[in-house]
Amino acid sequence: MDLALGIDIGGTSTKVALVDTKGAIVERDTFGTQRIENADHYLTHLLYTVANLFRRLEREFHLVGIGVGAPSCNEAAGTIEGAANLPFGDHFPIVSRLREQYELPVYLIKDSSAALLGESAYGAAIGVPDFILLTLGTGLGCAIMANGRLIRGASGMAGELGHVPVSGNLRECGCGKRGCLETYVSAVGLKRTVLALQAEDLTPSQLRTYTYDQLDARHISRAAMQGDLLARRAFERTGEVLGQKLAELVSVLEPQAIVLAGGMAEAGQLLIEPLQRHMEKALLGFHQNRVQILTSSLAPNDAALLGAASLVWNSHQPVSLS
Amino acid sequence: MDLALGIDIGGTSTKVALVDTKGAIVERDTFGTQRIENADHYLTHLLYTVANLFRRLEREFHLVGIGVGAPSCNEAAGTIEGAANLPFGDHFPIVSRLREQYELPVYLIKDSSAALLGESAYGAAIGVPDFILLTLGTGLGCAIMANGRLIRGASGMAGELGHVPVSGNLRECGCGKRGCLETYVSAVGLKRTVLALQAEDLTPSQLRTYTYDQLDARHISRAAMQGDLLARRAFERTGEVLGQKLAELVSVLEPQAIVLAGGMAEAGQLLIEPLQRHMEKALLGFHQNRVQILTSSLAPNDAALLGAASLVWNSHQPVSLS
Repeated sequence: MDLALGIDIGGTSTKVALVDTKGAIVERDTFGTQRIENADHYLTHLLYTVANLFRRLEREFHLVGIGVGAPSCNEAAGTIEGAANLPFGDHFPIVSRLREQYELPVYLIKDSSAALLGESAYGAAIGVPDFILLTLGTGLGCAIMANGRLIRGASGMAGELGHVPVSGNLRECGCGKRGCLETYVSAVGLKRTVLALQAEDLTPSQLRTYTYDQLDARHISRAAMQGDLLARRAFERTGEVLGQKLAELVSVLEPQAIVLAGGMAEAGQLLIEPLQRHMEKALLGFHQNRVQILTSSLAPNDAALLGAASLVWNSHQPVSLS
Repeated sequence: MDLALGIDIGGTSTKVALVDTKGAIVERDTFGTQRIENADHYLTHLLYTVANLFRRLEREFHLVGIGVGAPSCNEAAGTIEGAANLPFGDHFPIVSRLREQYELPVYLIKDSSAALLGESAYGAAIGVPDFILLTLGTGLGCAIMANGRLIRGASGMAGELGHVPVSGNLRECGCGKRGCLETYVSAVGLKRTVLALQAEDLTPSQLRTYTYDQLDARHISRAAMQGDLLARRAFERTGEVLGQKLAELVSVLEPQAIVLAGGMAEAGQLLIEPLQRHMEKALLGFHQNRVQILTSSLAPNDAALLGAASLVWNSHQPVSLS
């Protein structure tokens, strides 16, 4: 049996899986990334976890290659560079380190691009040649497929939507600027909106019992589902900001679909309904009512893992580094 | 000799040319579009002009096909639909009409997309796989190439940048909305900015001697080149608005280059300098100082004509309708 090793490196955990040619996960495991001190320490954890996967798989198999999805990566150089939530330092040459270890082709791809390939190959966007993927997590990730191919850009840095400005330019962003889309559209952005609405409105809300530090996106989703007006207003505002920005992207790219993935996408219609309404309102007539808004159809957070592994079977992709 | 017939349909004139496989124009002609009354009348003019081209060409040749660039076209249907400055009515099936006449493959493509293909095949962007083309004329046109292919979108309507909003949302647009990019970034937008600056500032300016109706982009360029401060400020503001919006597109698409074409591109550094400065300022660090801003290297307004003709040699393009 031919297998690919998929690795999805995130700020809180790393997921690894052995995946067959059809995208079925044969074995999988996860380890926490938060208490890891440096790149060497990380690699020890990773190799140990992978060795365990191999051991658990009792059949004979042939490992064909390794696909890695990661934030802040320089795909061309095969390195992870200055990732905010990972203790890798300025420069972690993960591709060469894994190649030394396994003597196999290793492919590195940005996490949001990996998720796009996962949705395209096995998820909500099978056979859709033009779509936009948004990963709504702690931050906002984006990747774009056009003419059936991932848009990488000149050096693999395309798909940066989190730091485009929204009108008003009020909220401070971790990047040093103000008013970035991510300060509104992300789990943290949603929380900031709840705080802003508590200041603006006097509407009673169960969310007024949480401190900023306690509050997370799940509290807000749950409150909204229970009818909490302030929580609903927070989704309305998030949908408005995102919908207006997506209208611009739709005008420029005319995709068939927009796929929402990541934790916040689980809010479903709470987010999609206002998003779609505001997006349609901002579009010119000939672009209206044509774009589908979908949510990931893969198990939560499996898109990037499967997309990274899929690089092994599609090594003609320009993102390969073999 | 194999030749393609290229046709570039514009609001003021239609250009036709016989083009060889290398993009060299063998014969060309132009006729005014403004006094034409309807689609039949237009077709008579067009066929007559083309017949004259054939007559003037004294060599033997083989006409392989016809490529048409036009505004407001439905590429898939082969029709021009509701073009604002053309007397074609709601629906002009130009592809079928030309096929009846010439019994040859006919390819229809949006004018800005045609210009993009022209720059890609013969102009400023030869061999550049990822670039954005802007046509700065009466309006603002846009087309995008990614991974070496034109982004058409779901139905050939991608590349609509003229009606994305800019912050402030003040100026009324012909589309019925307010604050569209085109109300700032276009020949008419530049003129509106000159009027606004005359209201805001007391700077003396030769442009204060023109009425709104008299003023055009060439007056403003000429005044700016002569050091007129108000005219220079108008380019500064245009560059700021366009640069900030292009920064968003660069973040999302990471092109190698942006190509400026159309009448206003002839202003050159008057526009490019502020545009580039404001664009770079708005980009995140890892996107800065990577994108080239180029101007069309083709004879003025030949890009769309050549790009339309090039479809005949590249009929594998998904824009074909043979």
